[in-house]
Amino acid sequence: MRLAPDASPHAVLAAGREVLHQQSFSRLLGTELTAFSRGRAELQLPLRPDHQQQSGFAHGGVVSYLADNALTFAGGSALDGNALTSEFKINYVRPAVGERLIARASCIHAGRNQAVSRCEIYAVAADGAEKLCAVAQGTIVRILDSSQG
Amino acid sequence: MRLAPDASPHAVLAAGREVLHQQSFSRLLGTELTAFSRGRAELQLPLRPDHQQQSGFAHGGVVSYLADNALTFAGGSALDGNALTSEFKINYVRPAVGERLIARASCIHAGRNQAVSRCEIYAVAADGAEKLCAVAQGTIVRILDSSQG
Amino acid sequence: MRLAPDASPHAVLAAGREVLHQQSFSRLLGTELTAFSRGRAELQLPLRPDHQQQSGFAHGGVVSYLADNALTFAGGSALDGNALTSEFKINYVRPAVGERLIARASCIHAGRNQAVSRCEIYAVAADGAEKLCAVAQGTIVRILDSSQG
Amino acid sequence: MRLAPDASPHAVLAAGREVLHQQSFSRLLGTELTAFSRGRAELQLPLRPDHQQQSGFAHGGVVSYLADNALTFAGGSALDGNALTSEFKINYVRPAVGERLIARASCIHAGRNQAVSRCEIYAVAADGAEKLCAVAQGTIVRILDSSQG
Repeated sequence: MRLAPDASPHAVLAAGREVLHQQSFSRLLGTELTAFSRGRAELQLPLRPDHQQQSGFAHGGVVSYLADNALTFAGGSALDGNALTSEFKINYVRPAVGERLIARASCIHAGRNQAVSRCEIYAVAADGAEKLCAVAQGTIVRILDSSQG
Repeated sequence: MRLAPDASPHAVLAAGREVLHQQSFSRLLGTELTAFSRGRAELQLPLRPDHQQQSGFAHGGVVSYLADNALTFAGGSALDGNALTSEFKINYVRPAVGERLIARASCIHAGRNQAVSRCEIYAVAADGAEKLCAVAQGTIVRILDSSQG
Repeated sequence: MRLAPDASPHAVLAAGREVLHQQSFSRLLGTELTAFSRGRAELQLPLRPDHQQQSGFAHGGVVSYLADNALTFAGGSALDGNALTSEFKINYVRPAVGERLIARASCIHAGRNQAVSRCEIYAVAADGAEKLCAVAQGTIVRILDSSQG
Repeated sequence: MRLAPDASPHAVLAAGREVLHQQSFSRLLGTELTAFSRGRAELQLPLRPDHQQQSGFAHGGVVSYLADNALTFAGGSALDGNALTSEFKINYVRPAVGERLIARASCIHAGRNQAVSRCEIYAVAADGAEKLCAVAQGTIVRILDSSQG
């Protein structure tokens, strides 16, 4: 997305939510964008039974989806133009169980055409306590045309 | 899953499909296990509109979910006991568009407690042509108790 | 390395320096351990002409060596016993040029048998200014016997 | 490096060796380029005592250096122009002990500005037997100007 240099915090968040809403997969899962500014993004996902793997935890694919998306929002907002994730890596450190997941990502470096972001994913219990369940790191590239080549 | 040393190919595939069926998230997405043997797994995902991101491609999170799952089936079947993905890394090389995705994973090394797997994810067009859209690599660990710590 | 629970900060740093000194490759490169406590490590490498690649920057392999080593010191000190790096990932964000490199690593989660660490690598100019040149993330495993299998 | 479209296999290998020779760090370690063609590279490193860590194995940083370099040669030769490694990930699967290390890398996808390569690193015993000791995967980017931004 292109963010005007003088866009208000409210306008930036609204623009991010519009992009998220255009992702039918994010609507299917129920993801919410709860904070968004240039180089930073927070996504939340209320956990449902149909997010689980065979042991009752949120599927690793749910966690990695959230990481991928948060990395892209953080890195993409720091680049000038549309962007997508070129690659990322994730380490799972605890089972993802709780009421919701929160992914907080920040861009740690942005050049002209690519940015590097990091992300932490927390599982939130009913009492609001957060436990780190995964960390991720990846590259976001500005889209020059229809492909990422 | 534990696979008996003398399990028939048919029994191994059936056991894998049972695990996949226990993943409510995989049922939500519609994933199929189309090949499975010790150290190897092939997952397929018929693409639907609700798998997409804002540009009409399958969401990166769909591709990374499929990679994560295929890596785990390949690595887990090579270890003795239940297993989960400790970490993985994915590089996206082409937009994921087409009728379905195929993830083919193989275990390249298995020790006592952990295995390393690699995976290629292809997008399949209506005419059956396959195009590589992502490659992944990750670590699968045997679950010793209720956590991966 | 095994660190006594009541080891003084000075004893911990001395133990870390002893391990580093036992690494002939680290002696070849000239690496120094400048800070070390349970879950944290800082390594420094004064840059020399024979650390370079063809463009006059420090070779990516020098940077990745320093990241690997810092991740292992940070993660290993948080585990009970000897440890080694199972895997890691590094993103280079700027050419590594300057008087020295500093790698700062911290363990973000430690279980019984494995830990996850993150690391930032900075290039330091003659005036002491630090510029981020790479970030890394990896898994450190406790050595149960002679191999990591 | 720029490779003429009609360069002979001998000329391509010679061009690669010239680049390797310009890397003072590769000369310090003793690396040899033993095969090189568009999208493929094989590097070898005769192991010496000063390549070791504290247990007598080749240091993980030696293995990751070799992986980084092989990934770059494979990916860079598939791109039009100078290139460098943007990021990579490595999994160590066995201690690196033996007479030499061999890294074999191939480019699995090349676009206009970036390529993705994979690499396997083997330890070679005195009798010539090869054992896989690490696998790596990474992104190589074409250098547009003096930085990778």
